Parts: sequence; C-alpha cells; structure tokens
Amino acid sequence: MNKITSLTNSKIKELVKLKDKKYRDEKGMFLIEGEDIILEARKNNLLELILTSNENYKDDIEIIYVTDGIIEKLASTKTPQGLIGVCKIPTNSSNLTEKVIVLDGLQDPSNVGAIIRSAKAFGYNTLMLTNDTVDIYNEKLIRSSKGYSFSMNIIKNDIKALLSLLKKENYYIVTSALKDSKSLEDVQKNGKIAIIIGNEGRGVSQDSLSSADIIVKIDMSEEVESLNASVAAALLMYEINKK
Amino acid sequence: MNKITSLTNSKIKELVKLKDKKYRDEKGMFLIEGEDIILEARKNNLLELILTSNENYKDDIEIIYVTDGIIEKLASTKTPQGLIGVCKIPTNSSNLTEKVIVLDGLQDPSNVGAIIRSAKAFGYNTLMLTNDTVDIYNEKLIRSSKGYSFSMNIIKNDIKALLSLLKKENYYIVTSALKDSKSLEDVQKNGKIAIIIGNEGRGVSQDSLSSADIIVKIDMSEEVESLNASVAAALLMYEINKK
Repeated sequence: MNKITSLTNSKIKELVKLKDKKYRDEKGMFLIEGEDIILEARKNNLLELILTSNENYKDDIEIIYVTDGIIEKLASTKTPQGLIGVCKIPTNSSNLTEKVIVLDGLQDPSNVGAIIRSAKAFGYNTLMLTNDTVDIYNEKLIRSSKGYSFSMNIIKNDIKALLSLLKKENYYIVTSALKDSKSLEDVQKNGKIAIIIGNEGRGVSQDSLSSADIIVKIDMSEEVESLNASVAAALLMYEINKK
Repeated sequence: MNKITSLTNSKIKELVKLKDKKYRDEKGMFLIEGEDIILEARKNNLLELILTSNENYKDDIEIIYVTDGIIEKLASTKTPQGLIGVCKIPTNSSNLTEKVIVLDGLQDPSNVGAIIRSAKAFGYNTLMLTNDTVDIYNEKLIRSSKGYSFSMNIIKNDIKALLSLLKKENYYIVTSALKDSKSLEDVQKNGKIAIIIGNEGRGVSQDSLSSADIIVKIDMSEEVESLNASVAAALLMYEINKK
C-alpha cells in the first residue's frame, strides 16, 4: 500500500489548492467530505478519488492513503471522519426542467446550500445561477446543501442570458420584492415556472424585476423588513407547488 | 473627552469577556454591533452603553470613546462600523402570547437567528428555548436574527417545564417528524398554538413528541431526507397562520 505522509507532497499541495475557487475553476475539480455528501457525489458519478487515513478502507474508486494530518489540511470541518473525496465539476447543463430556481447574486454559502436542499425537496431540479453568485463548489455551501446540488441541472451565466433563455422557453417568471408587489395568491401557475431569488442585502436585480411575469410579497408583519433568503425561497416554492 | 486607547484597560478586558456565554450569564450583559441591531436594542430598552471610535458621535446613552483597535477586539465581524453596543439581558418573561415557537435543542446560531426573524414576521412573539439550545446572545445568532429577538418574550427552561407550562395553558402543540406524522392539512387551529422545532440532526426530543397534539410532515420529494430547520420552522408558521 502506498501512503503519502508528507504535507509537502506535490499531489497533496495541488489538492489543497482546490480550497480556492480560482483553482477549482481551472482544474474542474472540487473537494468534499462527510459520508452523506460522498454518497451523493458517488450516486451522481462525480467522485473520482478518495483520500483516507483509514488503512483498511476499500473502494472501487481510486484511493490514496494519507495521514490524519493531511486529511485535516484538506478538510474544512474539524471532524472530517478520515475521508476526503475529490470530484469533477460537471459541465453546464442544457436541460431545463419544468421548475427552475434562479439565484440572482446570492452571497451566503449557507443560504444557497439551504435553498438547494429545499429546491430538491420541492422538485425544482434546475438551478440557474448568475456569475456573481457564490461558487456552488464552496465547501460550506456543499455542507449546507447536503450534496443535493450534485443531482441538479446547473446553468451558470450572467442574469441577462439566463432571463433570455427563460423567456425563449416560455417560463412564467416569479420573483419577490417589497415594492409594487402582489399577493402570492395572484400567481397564475400552469406550466413551466421559474422563481428568482435575490441577493441577501439588495434583493433581486433590476433586470430580473423587469423580466418577471409577477412580483410577489410574502404576507408578514410590518415590523419585519424581510425574511432570510433561504426562508423566502422555500415559502415561494412550497406555496406555488400547491397551485 | 475621555478616550480609552489601551487594549489592556480593565473595563475593556471585562467587556471582551462578554464574548463568552459563561461571562454573559454571570454579568447579565451582551455585546452587539451594526446600526440596525443597535436600533432594535434601543427600541427595546436593552442598550446601556455605546463604545465608538468616532469622536464626533453623540448619543443619549452613556458613551465610551475608544480606538479602532478596541472596536475590532470587541467586534465579531470584520467591519463593525466603529460602533459596539453593550446591552442588558432581559429577565425571563412570564408572558405567553397566542402563538409560541419552541426551540428544542437547536445548535446552529444562524438557523436560530433565521427562525427568530421568521417568528417575528409571522406573529410568533413568544420564544421558548430549552436549556441545551444555543445561547440567544451569541453574536452570530443576533446578526442572523437582525435583532428581532430583543422584542420577543423569552422563556428558557428544560423541555419538561416548557411543555408542562404549554399544557397547563391549553396550547395546541404542533411538531414535525418523519415517522408517524400527518399532513399539515390536519392541523386543527383554533386558539393558542405552539410549534416545536427540533435539533438539526436528531430532530425533536421524545418528550416533545409525546406531548404534541399533532405531529406533521411537510410534503416533499422522497429524495430529500429533511429540510433545513429554519426552513421547516418558517413553513410550519406560515402554513398554520393561513388556517
């Protein structure tokens, strides 16, 4: 059995770099940890390599045996369970499912992860993201999404291109804003639907507002200015599903 | 104008300790930052002292002028806007509003903050928390709650005591679980209601399950095991409000 024991080993140094988005984009690879998330990656054929400090570990995927110190160096959590997965970034999808969730400039990886988990739960299987949205291969995001992003169609582009694709394909576009907005009751769902979620601070972009077929507001106390983005996204998806 | 410039000043050293729960409990004080959150604390008469690095800052609350270095030391964000508030922890409330949200062992401060923000938005103005739930004066939690916890009735105790109070006051108790659960449609709301949200990993406690009048499950794809706790909480509150 070959075992890498040095943190300065060139292969390990290269893998550590995958903690940076720039290098992930360049190499088309990303790191994962945690059994559940590794399982999701495996199911979706993204898993290419396993690093483990457990010398009895067996797998039908390529394995590199390493020390606990190397696992810790590659991990983003304090208890990485002795296992790190290296995955390939899938290519941009061209599939559009009937229900699409669009992330317009979201920045908080935990929020985006929670939105992906809800999207999968509510059958929104296409995820569009603007180029200025947080990287979906961010470790914190993957953790919060429970790995459900791995089975979604992902389309990343600038907002104008995403909107124009949705328009061309006759999606009914829903977004939310505080001003000039209607009740959720007024959503007319019959067919393809896309819900746009805006940035945590500034909301959805002007382009999205202009392209929306309806802008809604979730009923709530006037004492509160807005909901958390992942909460708003889940409420919109759940409510519109009931129509 | 008196200005403290030394990080080793005894007053500053004492305030820095408020970053620890143990010391917050002992002193009955906590730290906040950010204009919006300071405003919420002020509205609720919790603000006792302001520390600022802005020498032109005026307030009707006691002010201590300090250096940027001291602000950074007290702050939990990288851009604390030159302003730190010191607040008193209010005493346990004995008020019970018609709608109550109960947190049974939640650990993630961002989740709990988002739940508080939703609770306020949906009129759940009493927050019960078990002793093993994350401290609600945790800075990350306050940030995520946008300071809305300051205007809630807060009752902290062990789960048995909280449940017995709800039972005595004839609350209809709703919680959610994957097994043996009914549809949200079956919730019979007419009068006082309490919703119990469980720990992110293990769900609600056995005591809560035994005391609930109804255990529900949110409709979703079988591919997903569970929703994020703050998402589930918001969906339950919003849906039950519509009844």
